[in-house]
Amino acid sequence: MSEPIAETDLMSKLVSLCKRRGFVFQSSEIYGGLRSAYDYGPMGAELKRNLMAEWWRQMVHSREDVVGIDASIVMHPRVWQASGHLANFADPLVDCKVCGERFRADKAPRAEPGSDAVIELADKGRAKAALDRVAKLDEVVQAGFTLTRDGKSLRGAKAGERGYVCPNCASPFLSEERQFNLMFRTSLGPVDPVGDVISVMREAIAAGRDDGEVRRAIEAAMASSAVYLRPETAQAMFVNFLNVQQTTGAKIPFGIAQMGKSFRNEVKVEHFIFRSCEFEQMEMEYFVEPGQGPASLEYWKEERMRWWRSIGLREENLRLRAHGPDELAHYSDGCFDVEYRFPWGWDELEGIASRTDYDLRAHSEASGRKLVYFDPEANDPETGKKGWRYLPHVIEPASGATRGVLAVLCDAYAEEPGDADGKGARTVLRLHPRLAPVKAAILPLVKKDGMPEVARKIVERFLSEGINAKYDEQHAIGRRYARHDEIGTPYAITVDTETLQDDTVTVRWRDTKEQRRIPVAEAVDVVKAALADA
Amino acid sequence: MSEPIAETDLMSKLVSLCKRRGFVFQSSEIYGGLRSAYDYGPMGAELKRNLMAEWWRQMVHSREDVVGIDASIVMHPRVWQASGHLANFADPLVDCKVCGERFRADKAPRAEPGSDAVIELADKGRAKAALDRVAKLDEVVQAGFTLTRDGKSLRGAKAGERGYVCPNCASPFLSEERQFNLMFRTSLGPVDPVGDVISVMREAIAAGRDDGEVRRAIEAAMASSAVYLRPETAQAMFVNFLNVQQTTGAKIPFGIAQMGKSFRNEVKVEHFIFRSCEFEQMEMEYFVEPGQGPASLEYWKEERMRWWRSIGLREENLRLRAHGPDELAHYSDGCFDVEYRFPWGWDELEGIASRTDYDLRAHSEASGRKLVYFDPEANDPETGKKGWRYLPHVIEPASGATRGVLAVLCDAYAEEPGDADGKGARTVLRLHPRLAPVKAAILPLVKKDGMPEVARKIVERFLSEGINAKYDEQHAIGRRYARHDEIGTPYAITVDTETLQDDTVTVRWRDTKEQRRIPVAEAVDVVKAALADA
Repeated sequence: MSEPIAETDLMSKLVSLCKRRGFVFQSSEIYGGLRSAYDYGPMGAELKRNLMAEWWRQMVHSREDVVGIDASIVMHPRVWQASGHLANFADPLVDCKVCGERFRADKAPRAEPGSDAVIELADKGRAKAALDRVAKLDEVVQAGFTLTRDGKSLRGAKAGERGYVCPNCASPFLSEERQFNLMFRTSLGPVDPVGDVISVMREAIAAGRDDGEVRRAIEAAMASSAVYLRPETAQAMFVNFLNVQQTTGAKIPFGIAQMGKSFRNEVKVEHFIFRSCEFEQMEMEYFVEPGQGPASLEYWKEERMRWWRSIGLREENLRLRAHGPDELAHYSDGCFDVEYRFPWGWDELEGIASRTDYDLRAHSEASGRKLVYFDPEANDPETGKKGWRYLPHVIEPASGATRGVLAVLCDAYAEEPGDADGKGARTVLRLHPRLAPVKAAILPLVKKDGMPEVARKIVERFLSEGINAKYDEQHAIGRRYARHDEIGTPYAITVDTETLQDDTVTVRWRDTKEQRRIPVAEAVDVVKAALADA
Repeated sequence: MSEPIAETDLMSKLVSLCKRRGFVFQSSEIYGGLRSAYDYGPMGAELKRNLMAEWWRQMVHSREDVVGIDASIVMHPRVWQASGHLANFADPLVDCKVCGERFRADKAPRAEPGSDAVIELADKGRAKAALDRVAKLDEVVQAGFTLTRDGKSLRGAKAGERGYVCPNCASPFLSEERQFNLMFRTSLGPVDPVGDVISVMREAIAAGRDDGEVRRAIEAAMASSAVYLRPETAQAMFVNFLNVQQTTGAKIPFGIAQMGKSFRNEVKVEHFIFRSCEFEQMEMEYFVEPGQGPASLEYWKEERMRWWRSIGLREENLRLRAHGPDELAHYSDGCFDVEYRFPWGWDELEGIASRTDYDLRAHSEASGRKLVYFDPEANDPETGKKGWRYLPHVIEPASGATRGVLAVLCDAYAEEPGDADGKGARTVLRLHPRLAPVKAAILPLVKKDGMPEVARKIVERFLSEGINAKYDEQHAIGRRYARHDEIGTPYAITVDTETLQDDTVTVRWRDTKEQRRIPVAEAVDVVKAALADA
């Protein structure tokens, strides 16, 4: 029924639909936008809420063995010290000395050391200006390169030992690599970091210290008030492990789940809402007996795939990919990614990792609090006696809510060409009814003859069942159908003169455009049934 | 039935219950805690979710004239410039030169200029040490004060022209007032603020600049990458006004609602979760025709009071307080606070403000985008002709979700003394069923004879109706009742041998402890009815 859409087109069409129908806007658009994030409009806010509510329903409410928490975004800085994020959650950044580009060394184009490096500027003028500057660089002088200009290209340089060049102009003349931590840092409390920095620096400069020493002095002065926005929600489950286990009396195996915002100062944001600096996660830490990790990983990878299918993602657009040994963190004994076939290719939707006892051990050691579990029934494998105290192992299904929204939109987007003349052509979002922002549009055929009043009463009926129905009287009925097709409303219910007489309405199915006249009560049941079918 | 609880006790009892039953934990507790925030445990996370879902249901889903959005926490810095937050959202801070306390000048104890100022240190030792230091202060020498020690007090000083003294030691020897902006600042993008600061400072110090000039140079260097965590959710509704109005075709009057985290670097956090640096808000901006502000304010103040009552807060603990002319912002033409009688007294739960066109005007001027509305039907009051383009006026009901949770907990907390011997004594949270974390506890009388299986089937029945029921088999039935009383579960449903024969269960009402034997299906209806009764 729908024609396949060229993959390169799908993203631009989707971004356009998202803007046009109020799903996703650029953040702070009237001020030229901000690269870090997006704002969810009326439809997008509902869609994201519904997706996250589905996750919570499945992962927390419908399970005896999982409870939820909602922890703060700003946690104690020692959390990030213990987790390794302060030391290691960093990208290696490099500045190009020719064009000024700042880029990730590990993602830069490779170049064989000693091979010819042709530098490409944007235009002749820039190439001329660059030639003078480049000729004076220490490394050019020392290597004895003679650079010549050929249009907008500079020739005569060779790639260095680094093995990579600038992704913008292909220059091999680069600054040192610097580790750039992806956590956003801020200061907590009524402190004055700038004032502290000034006095520290006056002292350090007076003592003749070099930049490295000055930097360390400044970092030390700022450290006392430094806090970080969480780069993941997971750590809160580890540091709250004892509180949750003890207050709920949970027995292993059990899990702690959380949804919410995380922040990463990404050098490169890409693919619309797929990778942004501010995003939302849905994570769960499942605690098991030592040795049970691999079996639990098997269970959870299937369970999570089932969930993504249950919210309507198509089988052929989902796959599980096992991490190779080179991809695994040193402490992990297994990891799978749930991947979705995005318009740009297969990419990660969720990671399901077996993390052994790495996290609870790290926080036990750093905090001095033993994050252990005591099982009075089990035999301690070391002593052979009843009663076993151990550090639980952890399986972590960690998914992106924000990229989940994008996958759902990609999967649901369809264009129908209509007949030979294009009549009946439409764009439709085939969202799962549970995810649809509006479940039923209640449409009076005309804005008079008592139809609006009857339609509003039907809306009330839906709302009293907890179903988000929306009254809509603007424009002709055809335009209203089209509007609701584009926002993915699965059912349109029309009130006409017949309704006033016999309490029947016309129900229109979004996907088939089929229409049927049925009593109002049955219409409510049709929608309820679609929502119950999980 | 319940005894009144002394107000001073209630907070400590509540904090203790919150910890014991998994409502609220100190953030990062294993690392000694963090003053800025709290973590919501399994019960608290559900309670907060339920409260916020109720707000959304009432303010967005059940209204034709309000839509929701979900914008980013980090917005463009020009948003905060235009809103006035960058310049004015600040507290005046002062350091005490005697004890080192940093405090808000506007909240410090008053002292008549020239009156005797007795400085009180914590102990004799500190007083001795302070005496030496204080005697050498410029202002002491210049004023010719002779200070003497009397135990832990220092006498001989007089209050200065400031009119206030240190809240910790009552010293009048204070630093200059400094404006401390309450917004958390961080840097966006792959920048190196410390590196920038070092080069700026080397230059400024070499040029012999003073601290004020150096500070301005540093602030300028950091400004290019500076972004702020939103101190309120409201601004997103203003900057998205056009996007939302145009994509939904909304007609004035209409509102835009948002819930979510906000951040304020509070100098003083207090009253448990009432005032913290990281908190959650539920805000709505309602756009009306110029001149309609006062009438809309009247409507919304009643509507919002009704809502707080509808979620179970007691009439006698709620009041509306009109702001006096001295409290109103210069642009506001009216404001009411919904106040709750917290254990420490009446305090703000929600502010409902008439903001005229201040916000849309400020963002229109700052962005150059006209945030106006065109009404083709209305007559332009200036020209008298049909078609009126205007800056809408705004009514803002802005409530705290976090402090809403605290009000709900305070209101619901009750202790029952039991009989003369204390038998039947209990603590109970009389939460509205819609807010209760668990709606029904399903309890097999014993863990055998097929009762667990039947109980789990009943749980399924509730879940399929979208009702959060929890299976619970740990400990004797009396202890389970007590546990569920403390977390506010309105219904306990017990499965016993009779259930296996005739499909009946015992339903126990939380508030009355009444028990009745009814068919399982009726038990489901009892709970559904309680949830429907809004």
